[in-house]
Amino acid sequence: MKRCVTGIRVRYPEVDRMGVVHHSNFFIWFEIGRTELLRQLGCTYEAMEAEGVFMPVVKASCRYRSPARYDEMLEVETVLEQVSASRVCFDYRLRRPGTGLLLAEATTVHATVNRSGEVIRLPDPYRDLLCPP
Amino acid sequence: MKRCVTGIRVRYPEVDRMGVVHHSNFFIWFEIGRTELLRQLGCTYEAMEAEGVFMPVVKASCRYRSPARYDEMLEVETVLEQVSASRVCFDYRLRRPGTGLLLAEATTVHATVNRSGEVIRLPDPYRDLLCPP
Amino acid sequence: MKRCVTGIRVRYPEVDRMGVVHHSNFFIWFEIGRTELLRQLGCTYEAMEAEGVFMPVVKASCRYRSPARYDEMLEVETVLEQVSASRVCFDYRLRRPGTGLLLAEATTVHATVNRSGEVIRLPDPYRDLLCPP
Amino acid sequence: MKRCVTGIRVRYPEVDRMGVVHHSNFFIWFEIGRTELLRQLGCTYEAMEAEGVFMPVVKASCRYRSPARYDEMLEVETVLEQVSASRVCFDYRLRRPGTGLLLAEATTVHATVNRSGEVIRLPDPYRDLLCPP
Repeated sequence: MKRCVTGIRVRYPEVDRMGVVHHSNFFIWFEIGRTELLRQLGCTYEAMEAEGVFMPVVKASCRYRSPARYDEMLEVETVLEQVSASRVCFDYRLRRPGTGLLLAEATTVHATVNRSGEVIRLPDPYRDLLCPP
Repeated sequence: MKRCVTGIRVRYPEVDRMGVVHHSNFFIWFEIGRTELLRQLGCTYEAMEAEGVFMPVVKASCRYRSPARYDEMLEVETVLEQVSASRVCFDYRLRRPGTGLLLAEATTVHATVNRSGEVIRLPDPYRDLLCPP
Repeated sequence: MKRCVTGIRVRYPEVDRMGVVHHSNFFIWFEIGRTELLRQLGCTYEAMEAEGVFMPVVKASCRYRSPARYDEMLEVETVLEQVSASRVCFDYRLRRPGTGLLLAEATTVHATVNRSGEVIRLPDPYRDLLCPP
Repeated sequence: MKRCVTGIRVRYPEVDRMGVVHHSNFFIWFEIGRTELLRQLGCTYEAMEAEGVFMPVVKASCRYRSPARYDEMLEVETVLEQVSASRVCFDYRLRRPGTGLLLAEATTVHATVNRSGEVIRLPDPYRDLLCPP
């Protein structure tokens, strides 16, 4: 299974006046998680875009279980869940290391599109990296 | 039905290098939508928090259908979908006015908690505003 | 003098755990201010970029005088301070309407560049809008 | 001299449609820089706030020299420039490692205040950490 664990330090402006991380920021951390998973698999999302392959989010969902606090170190576990003709799907678990407490679980679904936003088949070189034959 | 339509002008830093609004920002717009719906129903979320009633997001999901562009005026339609003992649920539709094109559909589920983060029953005055008897 | 006053409603995630707006967000509001000033003068920054004229910030400074709070309505006054061959300079004052309390004063300096980031002379049509002869 | 160098990986939503990091985000990186400098000196800003000592920004300025790009690793060098009765001042230099190219130079000035926002003298234990006698 393709998976990757990435450390995240909570930044000051990510925390709202409730004293906990604002829910919108979790999606930014999940994006860091999948970026690092891609890097670990041998490609960078930066290079994919440079070659005209984009992976916009078409569906995102998150279940928030426990609040995240300022300055703590967290871990995002990212799993490449599925790769089809023109869809890629990732799962995420956000945990507090040490205790292993689960803070959030999430899923994002991505279309593969070209520079004009038209859906394309994920090119073979990327397909081979994500799902080696 | 409790609903509210709120105008949103897309800000420069909300747009990413793909030239479209980054998916995390949609959740900030939906929050504006439910804030304005609460205001229209006669309470402000600011006053709720001042009285010790908080509504953190426990679940959020969004289906992205069409990209949003820099500087365009959009409309978030917010619907109060459900109010139970200690849960409140909102639905959202983001549209481009004029064409009526649907850009995104979303749902957020909120717990009602006190200042310490403990789940509480939504106090009656707020219950009466959200679901008049 | 070219000036413009724009209303800003403070958003929930703009407020940090001190209960006041995080200082980085003021620069986003000032950008809204100059966007609206340009619109009022007859051009949009969106159209300028579409024609290949960009105005990246080369210098920004802000003096924070009083904190901004969640959900309050504020006013950004934007003044077009100076236009030279390839520089444009704006001043800003952020105020709480009603009391007129000054929350912040700021300045941004912009270079005029083309799509490749090379400094260019601000094209005449824009120059005429910003500084009518 | 009190100084600290901190690595920053550019995040996707920090980049705007010009393809470069939006100027507001630099202030978030500088905040990371001073947080890490404080940590290195033996205190955390998180603990300072827990003890009722806050350091809001009262002045911030930045000179942008070269654009930052998506996914690159940068270095913020933070220098504790001055500590007076109730003011703390930091300088920052943002560089691209390897080339050493200077992307930005900045300064922030902070007041030391209590939970109510009233200016206080920086308590001695913190003063001793920041400026050992």
